[in-house]
Amino acid sequence: MPVNIAPLDPAALLPIAGVEIGIASAGIKKVGRKDTTLFRIAPGARVAGVFTLNRFCAAPVRICQGYLAAGHEIRALVINTGNANAGTGVDGMQRAQAICAATAVELGVEANQVLPFSTGVILESLPADKIIAALPAAKADFSASNWAEAASSIMTTDIVPKASSTQVQIGGKTVTITGIAKGSGMIHPNMATMLGYVATDAAISQPLLQQMLKYAADHSFNSITVDGDTSTNDSFILIATGQAGNDEIVDANSADFAALQAAVLQVSQFLAQAIVRDGEGATKFITINVEGGASYDECKAVGYAIGRSPLVKTAFFASDPNLGRILAAIGYAGINDLDVDNIEVRLDDVLVAINGGRNPDYREEQGQAVMNKAEIAINIKLNRGEHKATVWSCDFSYDYVKINAEYRS
Amino acid sequence: MPVNIAPLDPAALLPIAGVEIGIASAGIKKVGRKDTTLFRIAPGARVAGVFTLNRFCAAPVRICQGYLAAGHEIRALVINTGNANAGTGVDGMQRAQAICAATAVELGVEANQVLPFSTGVILESLPADKIIAALPAAKADFSASNWAEAASSIMTTDIVPKASSTQVQIGGKTVTITGIAKGSGMIHPNMATMLGYVATDAAISQPLLQQMLKYAADHSFNSITVDGDTSTNDSFILIATGQAGNDEIVDANSADFAALQAAVLQVSQFLAQAIVRDGEGATKFITINVEGGASYDECKAVGYAIGRSPLVKTAFFASDPNLGRILAAIGYAGINDLDVDNIEVRLDDVLVAINGGRNPDYREEQGQAVMNKAEIAINIKLNRGEHKATVWSCDFSYDYVKINAEYRS
Repeated sequence: MPVNIAPLDPAALLPIAGVEIGIASAGIKKVGRKDTTLFRIAPGARVAGVFTLNRFCAAPVRICQGYLAAGHEIRALVINTGNANAGTGVDGMQRAQAICAATAVELGVEANQVLPFSTGVILESLPADKIIAALPAAKADFSASNWAEAASSIMTTDIVPKASSTQVQIGGKTVTITGIAKGSGMIHPNMATMLGYVATDAAISQPLLQQMLKYAADHSFNSITVDGDTSTNDSFILIATGQAGNDEIVDANSADFAALQAAVLQVSQFLAQAIVRDGEGATKFITINVEGGASYDECKAVGYAIGRSPLVKTAFFASDPNLGRILAAIGYAGINDLDVDNIEVRLDDVLVAINGGRNPDYREEQGQAVMNKAEIAINIKLNRGEHKATVWSCDFSYDYVKINAEYRS
Repeated sequence: MPVNIAPLDPAALLPIAGVEIGIASAGIKKVGRKDTTLFRIAPGARVAGVFTLNRFCAAPVRICQGYLAAGHEIRALVINTGNANAGTGVDGMQRAQAICAATAVELGVEANQVLPFSTGVILESLPADKIIAALPAAKADFSASNWAEAASSIMTTDIVPKASSTQVQIGGKTVTITGIAKGSGMIHPNMATMLGYVATDAAISQPLLQQMLKYAADHSFNSITVDGDTSTNDSFILIATGQAGNDEIVDANSADFAALQAAVLQVSQFLAQAIVRDGEGATKFITINVEGGASYDECKAVGYAIGRSPLVKTAFFASDPNLGRILAAIGYAGINDLDVDNIEVRLDDVLVAINGGRNPDYREEQGQAVMNKAEIAINIKLNRGEHKATVWSCDFSYDYVKINAEYRS
């Protein structure tokens, strides 16, 4: 069961002026399952994306990268579940392009203004004809209030839909940010995650939108892990429709940029953490705070070494304060000049390890009390610099094996 | 249950002239459990070692590294299970040194001629007094024929003991090589594995012994993974007593060196593969052959990405030919200029993927037939160079979670 995710309240999801969403059933894996989601974006909006670094990236990822790099004005997103269109070669590219072309005809735009996204099984041929046949129904469903429905329709092994909204004042105008994401397994994003979409009505220049997206990705989706497997289809898209009426943000050092970035980050972190809380088989939500590092990257490497260690994750599943496994993971995180005698490790506020060994005052029952909780922080001080990073992870349970041994994801 | 390991035949383990072994019960975790193993090595032998690169390496690892680097003639090894003496700071170093000193008195050698080894739980204080009290009993048990008993007494979560012998002709003399190893979880060795000891009666110079050890480690213990966790205590020791009567091997390009290296590699690979076959919860033994790489390191990176992927490992547990997960792992192995359109992936001899996608002639039942087996090869051609590497791994089952959630290893 997901760890501490409040049920989605559709009324709390705020529409974004300039974004409409329609949903349909193409019958990709199951007849009647809502598996196709169409976004229509008003003219003049700006769109930025970051994508998986997996070399076996899916056909739709390659197409998105190409269209965004060429600077085309993006007018639509079309998303399917049930098939990743990855490991599908030239044929997969042609099928994704056919979907873009059909969507363009449906909406009266150009094919290179449509970004395609797929998620599901790898190495199987995408039934593009079914998706194309569902496009009119998706168009007929267009509404600015369909964010909750979209959060559900992009799910695969997810148990709960993931969505969040916030508002912030920018230059005297109320700016709204709403986002959705999906993901539960094959979660170890590298540059982005398994389908995240955040939209705002703020006006912001294209380079700053890209900069903001990169920052938000690094500190949200690029800071989580469920199983250490980096997907072929990770995509994170930030849309700015510019309809809030604020003066366009063009200065990365301005208060407006900072305010919008904080709000985008808030929504992105909520979504990324929701993916971990809904991680396959998860029973615990683990926050790994690493500070005192010589660089952000080394802090993150330590966080990820702990967060993806099967031994750490099974110990947390068992609520077993077998904390030597955390030290072992820190030790193999790849910091070759790490002086372990300077490290402090705390479980929540309980000091476990110091001076290269166990804190003499630490008592097993203190660790046990923390391990019994569903939300646990591992707090690490490297004491060798001023940088810090946070990684979010979950435990590793029988159900992870069950889900991945029994489900063809 | 371990995958295809024949029961150990003590009679097949050949003694090594110049090596005696004694075993005793120190009662470290359980009264009566044989947990302390003592090797006595004759004067004139040469000893080389490689050790974990984990920065939280255990106190005994640090001591071994120091004594070997200083060039002391090694005369004894003392090995305990039940406690890793890792994450134990200055106090842990003092306890390990006390064991070396007591062993030296018992055997009439110097403390810096004794290499200590520990395996078991991390972050707990080593009961050195119990080990020291057991040394006389271990000495009284000295025999050249105790290799099988030693293979059992160094086990922790291992289900079966791991040992192997071979013989080879060197310069007209019969040279014998015998080795033992232990390990089952926290297996992703980096430079060595969780306790491997190989001895030969061959005569060989110290630099060539070290070179041979490094090569054997890289192609055996450093080519396996169970769970991706690199231990704090990995140690692999090669002893050459020089009592076989062959002329000392001093030329790395000689036929004698090649013959001995091949024999040492054979024993080392047997032991390393036995660790994988006995991997925690393993039901399948997976050989990952990667060829056509631009370097050995990139071939190994691809092998390890596949071998440690929880998604690949759970699919193998389920005998599910969900082979897209293999492509995804290849894609995130870190080869930034990898052209996936050139890759061929075979399951045993069945061509699964080619030209960046699924082989059009591949049929699911072909993959299923291979997946139903207990020993499976994943054969990958990168088609970008002349290098190759092999990694051995196992699947990921409910029992892995059970063992690590319920056992304080």
